[in-house]
Amino acid sequence: MSILLKDCSWIVTQNASREVLREKSIYIEDGMIREIASKIAHEADRVIECKDKIVMPGLVNTHTHLPMTLLRGYVDDMPLQEWLETKIWPTERKLTGELSYQGALLGCLEMIRTGTTCFMDMYFFMEDVARAVKQSGLRAFLSHAIIDIFDPERAEKDRETTQRLHRFIQDLGESRIQFVLGPHAPYTCKEETLLRCKEISDKENILIHTHIAETKNEQASFETRYGRREVEYLDKIGFLSPRLVAVHSVWLSRNEIELFRTRGVKVSHCPVSNMKLGDGGVAPLPEMFEAGIPVSLGTDSASSNNCLDMFETMKVCSLLHKAQRWDPTILPAQKVLDLATLGGAETLQIAERVGGIEEDKAADVIALDLKAPNMTPIHGKETVVSDLVYSAKGMNVSVTIVDGQLLMAEGKFQTVDEHEIYQAAQKAAMELVR
Amino acid sequence: MSILLKDCSWIVTQNASREVLREKSIYIEDGMIREIASKIAHEADRVIECKDKIVMPGLVNTHTHLPMTLLRGYVDDMPLQEWLETKIWPTERKLTGELSYQGALLGCLEMIRTGTTCFMDMYFFMEDVARAVKQSGLRAFLSHAIIDIFDPERAEKDRETTQRLHRFIQDLGESRIQFVLGPHAPYTCKEETLLRCKEISDKENILIHTHIAETKNEQASFETRYGRREVEYLDKIGFLSPRLVAVHSVWLSRNEIELFRTRGVKVSHCPVSNMKLGDGGVAPLPEMFEAGIPVSLGTDSASSNNCLDMFETMKVCSLLHKAQRWDPTILPAQKVLDLATLGGAETLQIAERVGGIEEDKAADVIALDLKAPNMTPIHGKETVVSDLVYSAKGMNVSVTIVDGQLLMAEGKFQTVDEHEIYQAAQKAAMELVR
Repeated sequence: MSILLKDCSWIVTQNASREVLREKSIYIEDGMIREIASKIAHEADRVIECKDKIVMPGLVNTHTHLPMTLLRGYVDDMPLQEWLETKIWPTERKLTGELSYQGALLGCLEMIRTGTTCFMDMYFFMEDVARAVKQSGLRAFLSHAIIDIFDPERAEKDRETTQRLHRFIQDLGESRIQFVLGPHAPYTCKEETLLRCKEISDKENILIHTHIAETKNEQASFETRYGRREVEYLDKIGFLSPRLVAVHSVWLSRNEIELFRTRGVKVSHCPVSNMKLGDGGVAPLPEMFEAGIPVSLGTDSASSNNCLDMFETMKVCSLLHKAQRWDPTILPAQKVLDLATLGGAETLQIAERVGGIEEDKAADVIALDLKAPNMTPIHGKETVVSDLVYSAKGMNVSVTIVDGQLLMAEGKFQTVDEHEIYQAAQKAAMELVR
Repeated sequence: MSILLKDCSWIVTQNASREVLREKSIYIEDGMIREIASKIAHEADRVIECKDKIVMPGLVNTHTHLPMTLLRGYVDDMPLQEWLETKIWPTERKLTGELSYQGALLGCLEMIRTGTTCFMDMYFFMEDVARAVKQSGLRAFLSHAIIDIFDPERAEKDRETTQRLHRFIQDLGESRIQFVLGPHAPYTCKEETLLRCKEISDKENILIHTHIAETKNEQASFETRYGRREVEYLDKIGFLSPRLVAVHSVWLSRNEIELFRTRGVKVSHCPVSNMKLGDGGVAPLPEMFEAGIPVSLGTDSASSNNCLDMFETMKVCSLLHKAQRWDPTILPAQKVLDLATLGGAETLQIAERVGGIEEDKAADVIALDLKAPNMTPIHGKETVVSDLVYSAKGMNVSVTIVDGQLLMAEGKFQTVDEHEIYQAAQKAAMELVR
């Protein structure tokens, strides 16, 4: 399969010098970007006219819970603990593999629609999620959520489920889908579980995906129980490493940021979810940048966001920190775009192959239509990145390509039947909350 | 002209009991909603199938500067004063009526696309803006920006321009377009100008549209110069009234909120612009609600937002206050939707006719497509409002009707040529910043 993105108005490369190219074409073959040039001699199986489009790397979403897409809008405007205890957890007990598959497929559809090409997920029934992801064509890192501190039986089961998911993904033989370890959080996992994950992670170079310091209450009650702050505890037991992706990381002390730096920990920042759940505080991104900690962006689940649109997350991220620091120069557009592309790729340890429009990189590419009110005018090369972060919407995306496969063209899905998915997801949601 | 919105899946009425109706049709004739029923006997000139749609009142945006749509993305990530002094003001000096018309038309297009049916604007060359608005079919309240403290010549000119705009709009004879007084701000207008506006406002029942207490620096330097806080000064000179729309109102003391309450002042809250400009602080909405002050929402200009999408503004508004107060129950979805519909109508003194889907109200109506990933699933009557505020995007809107006139159907503009507007606006923007 080869694709020619012909006469792109603008190409936001996200290469080392953050070049923005004008009126070039991109030739894609066998999953790779082969050539970027004004004139391309190759014949392509599929030619997409990009005369009125901005072409850019696909966005990377480093924190989702895909089956929860079925719970979009189910309960909002409720305190976190009440929300979890009275609504989310009782509903999750009724989940099945088939329902998870339907929710995951709906989530994939939304990501393709809004320009996300790669994501990292944590949930249950992950083999079913893997099936959906494979069908969708997206690139994904999948983890089973281990929550074993309350129940020894569950601990054993979680361990087995994790091992089975690992084998299942290996057997899929799909290079786009990778296995990740998913101890849910320091306060929901036994110490030996955390250490067992760390051991596998070190030995097999596998990422660990975990929630850290999401809320003030969580950090406070952890300190009461363990006599230490979360990250200090994790460092003491030897859990921190460059393969750890610490999701949220809102309530960190300066010392904890310093521990992240020393151990090479990466952060997934989820501004919309943090704000919507009203947990208080704002993740200290400027201090993380100062320390050189790699940061990426996540939407969190459609149940706490309520969508998986990374364009929205980019804009809200920038707004939040500007407002928080009373400083419009904090988090400029280029930095935010870096978080959502290169930052994601670095977090997932795929930066060598993914995150930029460059020859010999994987073809994870999206294009946005300029023929839309909110994308007019474009002032020039210097403003295109700003237009992407502050003006563009996920729904301006009209082309999505992952690993050289065309998943959406002119806003039409190429690999899945959207109307079938809407119908099945609606039915699955009704069954789940019944 | 009559329109039948047939078999609407959901109708979010925003009536007094906030009813959500299921599977009803809406008959529109001569600009009015004539009938809402399961079966409608009338034949309509135009039938729109709404089986997979949410129908709701059009959104009301109470603060824009429409010609600045040409400056979308021109300069971002810069401190407010530097942004104004080095970029915006020098560019504005090059504005012409024709450029303002093109910018305004582009802004109208974006509002129609994203479900805004009524707005209040303040800028220059407002006769040209009025021409664009008339052409677009939107409902609007238009004011000439008076900034006369620095320059006696300009003071005289502003007075004449304001009078001319008033006559121009009267002569248009277009009930959708209303004249509004626009003294820019207490710190940019002479006291006698403010008082002259107040006098006309009282005598002729005309709204006053003004910026108040947008930034901390503004409030602080005002206190230094005038020896009083802004609102206290305005109350002392007798400027406050129920016809005053105080835009921003971020830096208010409890006493100033109390003065707003006593005098019946209304507030236009612009969360995205306030955050993006990083001016610090958050408008004290909970305290305003407690005092019973009517609040509405505005986007501010596409130069400081950078779009005119009220769905985005609704979501960000809710996120901002939840985050600011560490409370997910602050500003629930229904309240946010009220601000963007009924709150806007009340602010503009048109609540008797506009803001709800009810028989004998003006037909300012929009519909959103449910066949979209982010609009699936819908859990039921109780969640539809939440879906509109947290999941929906302006681009989900596919039908826009103002005053009974169909401006967009199935995402296609009915009254204007979008491609002509994109081309002309791009050209105008290049000319403006050259």
